[in-house]
Amino acid sequence: MKVRRPSDAEIGLIPRGALVVATMDPYGAEEAVSAMASAGLVAVAMEFMPRITRAQVMDVLSSQANLAGYQAVVDAAEVYDRAFPMMMTAAGTVPAARVFVMGAGVAGLQAIATARRLGAVVSATDVRPASKEQVESLGAKFIAVEDEEFKAAETAAGYAKPMSAEYQAKQAALVAEHIKKQDVVITTALIPGRAAPRLVTASMIAAMRPGSVLVDLAVERGGNVEGAVAGEIVEVGAVRIVGHRNVAGRIAATASQLYAKNLYAFVETLVDKEKKVLAVDYADELVKATVLTRDGAVVHPAFAPKEAA
Amino acid sequence: MKVRRPSDAEIGLIPRGALVVATMDPYGAEEAVSAMASAGLVAVAMEFMPRITRAQVMDVLSSQANLAGYQAVVDAAEVYDRAFPMMMTAAGTVPAARVFVMGAGVAGLQAIATARRLGAVVSATDVRPASKEQVESLGAKFIAVEDEEFKAAETAAGYAKPMSAEYQAKQAALVAEHIKKQDVVITTALIPGRAAPRLVTASMIAAMRPGSVLVDLAVERGGNVEGAVAGEIVEVGAVRIVGHRNVAGRIAATASQLYAKNLYAFVETLVDKEKKVLAVDYADELVKATVLTRDGAVVHPAFAPKEAA
Repeated sequence: MKVRRPSDAEIGLIPRGALVVATMDPYGAEEAVSAMASAGLVAVAMEFMPRITRAQVMDVLSSQANLAGYQAVVDAAEVYDRAFPMMMTAAGTVPAARVFVMGAGVAGLQAIATARRLGAVVSATDVRPASKEQVESLGAKFIAVEDEEFKAAETAAGYAKPMSAEYQAKQAALVAEHIKKQDVVITTALIPGRAAPRLVTASMIAAMRPGSVLVDLAVERGGNVEGAVAGEIVEVGAVRIVGHRNVAGRIAATASQLYAKNLYAFVETLVDKEKKVLAVDYADELVKATVLTRDGAVVHPAFAPKEAA
Repeated sequence: MKVRRPSDAEIGLIPRGALVVATMDPYGAEEAVSAMASAGLVAVAMEFMPRITRAQVMDVLSSQANLAGYQAVVDAAEVYDRAFPMMMTAAGTVPAARVFVMGAGVAGLQAIATARRLGAVVSATDVRPASKEQVESLGAKFIAVEDEEFKAAETAAGYAKPMSAEYQAKQAALVAEHIKKQDVVITTALIPGRAAPRLVTASMIAAMRPGSVLVDLAVERGGNVEGAVAGEIVEVGAVRIVGHRNVAGRIAATASQLYAKNLYAFVETLVDKEKKVLAVDYADELVKATVLTRDGAVVHPAFAPKEAA
C-alpha cells in the first residue's frame, strides 16, 4: 500500500504478482502503467473507486478533496492582506472579505463552508443545477446563468455535462463581471482524465481589485486560472495566484488519517477473514473498477490497448 | 505622522518644532527619545492614548491587537498539520482542534472568536476575574484557579495586578496539566513597559502532543513562550513555535486602514477647524498623556529625568 504510484526504481524492488494499492494518477502516465504491467504487478488505483454507497468509506478523492477545500481557504486567509470577517471596532468597521468559489463539488462545498465560518461573504458557481441548493444551504449566493439549458444540464449520474458554446459565453460574461468585485477566488474544477477547464482568464485577473487572491486547486492538472504555476505563489499585477501542489497534503496528519481509513476499508474486502489470507475477488465491482494491471497486462478499460477493450 | 519611531537619520531631516505622531515604542529606547528631544521635535506616542471613551477611536493598541488576535489564529491554522473544525466524513470523523488562548485582552478575545469561527474547541485563561464572563460569552471554557485571591484580583482600572507566589504556582500547575491536551496554544500576555511574562516553559512544551503549535504574540517583548524566536518558526521536538514579528502588519491593508483612522481622529483634535491651522492644546488630557518630548526636553512622566518629574 502506498500514497502515490511507485517510481521506476521502486517497481524493480516489488516481487512479481504483488498487489500495489495507491493513488496511481494514471492519466498521462501510460508508460508508468505499462511498466507496472511488465513487472507483473497487480496495480490498483484507489481514485477509480466507484461512487456507490458501499465504497463511500474508500473514496479517496472525496476525502482528500474535502481537506483541500478547507486548506484552500486557510491558504487564502494567510496570503490575503485583510481580515476575512467583518469587524466592528472603535476605529471603524472593516468590511468582510468577498469570496467566490468556482466549482461546488466536495472541495468547493468545504471551501464555501470554511470561508463562511471565517465570516466572509461567499458566492459560488457550478454548471450542475443540483449544486444551487447545496450552495445556498451553506449560506452562499449561487451565481450562474439559469436558463433552460442550465436547468436541463445535470446528467443521471450527477456529473456535469458539456454545455453549448452559447451557454459558456453567457456564463463567462457573468463570471467576469462578478469576479471584479471579489477579494478571494477559489477554483476547484477538475474533470477526470482531462485537463482542468480554464475558468479565469488573464483579462479577468487584470480587472480584479489590488490585493485580491486566487487559489487554484486544479493547478496540477493545467490550472483553472491563467498564469497559475504549480508549487508557487505568483504575483500578476497587484493580484496573487496561489498554486500549492497537493493541497490536502498541507494538512498531512488529517490527510493521512483519512487516506489510511480509505485503504483499510478497501483492503478489508480483499482478505479472507477466516483464513487470514489475501483473497482478491476479481469479479467484485470494486476490484474491477480499480485494477489497472494484472498478469503482465494493462487491463483497465480506460488504459487497455484498444484491441483488448 | 508615521507608523514607527523616526530613525536617527530621519530625525536629522525633520525641522525643529515639528510634531511627530507615531507608535514610538519608547520603552528601552530612552536614547532615541532623548535624540528626538535634542532635535527639538514634539514627539507624540500614539500608544499612550488614555483608555477613556473620547479616545477609543484613537486607541492604536486596541485596533492592532484585535488584528493580531485574528491573524494569530490564521497563522496557527496554516502551520498546524490537521484541520481545525470537526469533520464528519464517510472515511471517519476528524476531531476538532483544541485551542488554548492565554491572556484574554483585546488580542486574546479576538483569537478566541476566530478559533471558534473555524470550529475549534477553545479554552482561555487570564488573571482578571472579569475576563471569565467575556471568555465564556465567546463560547470558550475558562481555565483558572478561582480561589479567593483570584476573585479579589481585578484593580479599579480593570488591569491585572501581580498575584502572590502561591497563586502563581497553583495556576502554573493547572496550566501545565491543561496544555498537555492542547493542539494549539496562543499567548497574548503583554505588560506595558515591562518584559512579557513567561507563561509556557520548555518542560510544558516537552509534554505537548507531537504536531502541536504555539503562537507567541509577545515574542518581540521577550516572549511568553520559552524558546520562541522573533521573526521565526522554530521546531522544538515535534512542536512548532510561531514567532512572527508585528503580527497585525501581516494583514497590512486592514492594519493600515485602522491605524489611519486612529491617527486621523487624534489629529482632528490638534487642529483649529475654523482657521485650518495646527493648534495643539498642551493642556488637553490626550496630548498630556502622549507627548514624549517638547521644547528640547523629555517631558513625559514615564521618561523625564527624575528631577523634572
